[in-house]
Amino acid sequence: MEILFLGTSSGVPTKTRNVSAVAVQAGQSKSWFLVDCGEATQHQLQYCKLSLKNLRAIAITHVHGDHCYGLPGLLASAGVAGRTESLVIIAPQGIKPWLETTMEMTQMYLPYSLEFIATEELAEQQFDDVKVTITPLSHRVPSFAYSFTQSSSQKVLKSEALKLAGLPQGPLWGRLQSGVDVEFDNQTFLSSDYVESLQHSNKVVICGDNDNPSLLKSMCDGADVLVHESTYTEDMADKASNVGHSYAKQVAQFAEEVTVPHLILTHFSARYQSNQEGEGSVEQMRVEAEQVFNGRLFLARDFDHFRLNQQHKLTLLNEGKSREH
Amino acid sequence: MEILFLGTSSGVPTKTRNVSAVAVQAGQSKSWFLVDCGEATQHQLQYCKLSLKNLRAIAITHVHGDHCYGLPGLLASAGVAGRTESLVIIAPQGIKPWLETTMEMTQMYLPYSLEFIATEELAEQQFDDVKVTITPLSHRVPSFAYSFTQSSSQKVLKSEALKLAGLPQGPLWGRLQSGVDVEFDNQTFLSSDYVESLQHSNKVVICGDNDNPSLLKSMCDGADVLVHESTYTEDMADKASNVGHSYAKQVAQFAEEVTVPHLILTHFSARYQSNQEGEGSVEQMRVEAEQVFNGRLFLARDFDHFRLNQQHKLTLLNEGKSREH
Repeated sequence: MEILFLGTSSGVPTKTRNVSAVAVQAGQSKSWFLVDCGEATQHQLQYCKLSLKNLRAIAITHVHGDHCYGLPGLLASAGVAGRTESLVIIAPQGIKPWLETTMEMTQMYLPYSLEFIATEELAEQQFDDVKVTITPLSHRVPSFAYSFTQSSSQKVLKSEALKLAGLPQGPLWGRLQSGVDVEFDNQTFLSSDYVESLQHSNKVVICGDNDNPSLLKSMCDGADVLVHESTYTEDMADKASNVGHSYAKQVAQFAEEVTVPHLILTHFSARYQSNQEGEGSVEQMRVEAEQVFNGRLFLARDFDHFRLNQQHKLTLLNEGKSREH
Repeated sequence: MEILFLGTSSGVPTKTRNVSAVAVQAGQSKSWFLVDCGEATQHQLQYCKLSLKNLRAIAITHVHGDHCYGLPGLLASAGVAGRTESLVIIAPQGIKPWLETTMEMTQMYLPYSLEFIATEELAEQQFDDVKVTITPLSHRVPSFAYSFTQSSSQKVLKSEALKLAGLPQGPLWGRLQSGVDVEFDNQTFLSSDYVESLQHSNKVVICGDNDNPSLLKSMCDGADVLVHESTYTEDMADKASNVGHSYAKQVAQFAEEVTVPHLILTHFSARYQSNQEGEGSVEQMRVEAEQVFNGRLFLARDFDHFRLNQQHKLTLLNEGKSREH
């Protein structure tokens, strides 16, 4: 699975961070999911290899503008780009009538259909080999986390057992692996005896705005990666009380408690403009999170591109270099 | 007056051209007008000196998404930036209910009020020394052009007459200019005899999508600058018939007919991506427009910044260098 950050700023865009959007690409196929779609998400996509034709579904975490104002423009541009396949939009109930009003007002006629699924009514949804589930969070408006679990199985030959049984390595091994029983040296080798099915499963949890990480306890069971907002540092959160957001240490403490191996913080307040150390720097988040979290910690930057492999290892593919102006 | 292009692409953004938006700054004050507000106009403003606190009014030419999807985000960010002064929005009737629905759905509470004026009902509107008028255009939906006329008067001494009359240059000249009659050498000099009021007027016309430039004939009377869409070149317009847009030669012919001294073409189809010469280049527009237009012609680029002085001269202040990525 791959995770590509398209916007990592809270509330308003800055020169280096756009408002919220994360792409999740699952499996070998080029299809991908978009979680949230702040204004200018389509502009960010111009700098990525993801195609709007291969977008499988859009999942919106909550109805605040910095998480959804990019939807109408992105849908229109997908039409201009020649998309014809139906597109699923999983979103809190307010989004569907708003989008329909917007499309009607601006006379937007899409060459593909939209399938709306109300987040509130979603238990789990299977998209081929990817399962999507939700968990309600705590924010000023209904907000949700989405988990993406990709399962795959791999047929593996018990090669040591075959060698002991005396079947020479070669085409007969291939037939066994493909499920066919074979005869050799007056002996029958049953495929079912020599082939085992290994199950792989990767799970990524991507959250909307939330001031209570403990609500994610169940969803984080078996998760490889937790992507959670960290709007403030602890001291600033004290000053801006009751805002419905989390601070770095709070999220890190939760991640440590549920032993998620990888934590990616995002959705930073524009107060933390600098990537340098010191006051007003997002690096303050790292300092306070590392005090309590022993897994691997990342502070997301726009265009950071992560790969999670079947061995549950997360790698940052790029240098996370933001657009320069 | 100053004109700053924030978006010059038609329909969809490209890497170097955002969708439609133009800023018009009038007079010595820092206040400015925004004509159209495509998605990510607020992002473009991050690279300009214009402040959302000093925005006087927003005028929307028509309800298509590439001209208005940036409105909600820009209004929200103006609130975050601390704007408290009421903001005028002049827009076709569909915009007001859509914005209100959008604000309600996303729980956007602005710390300033919005004053809507329906374009359809606007005759002319005075904003201090700037007069705004409209003209209906021809497009697939109701579309409008806005003119901005800034008038100022300057009190000028008839210095030659004063010299002939024998009043020595000095403080007495200053008193005369300020409207006070003066005595000198037993002679009375009446201010009204020696001061004349010179009227200056600058006029800029900025158009929405339009396939019939001749509708602008009356509005272009006395205009210094005409900013008009030029979505296609002539050959492409033939192929894309009945789209409601103009091509370069068509607009240039009109501008020549009404003898507008400065024509700025904008709103180029994404087909014309290149700024180099040759096929698929926006420079094709220049070639065909120059064949028929003898005034000064410009092809707008994002962040092109023009100044129109009281002597009716238009200067491109920047090198028009687009953002590089």
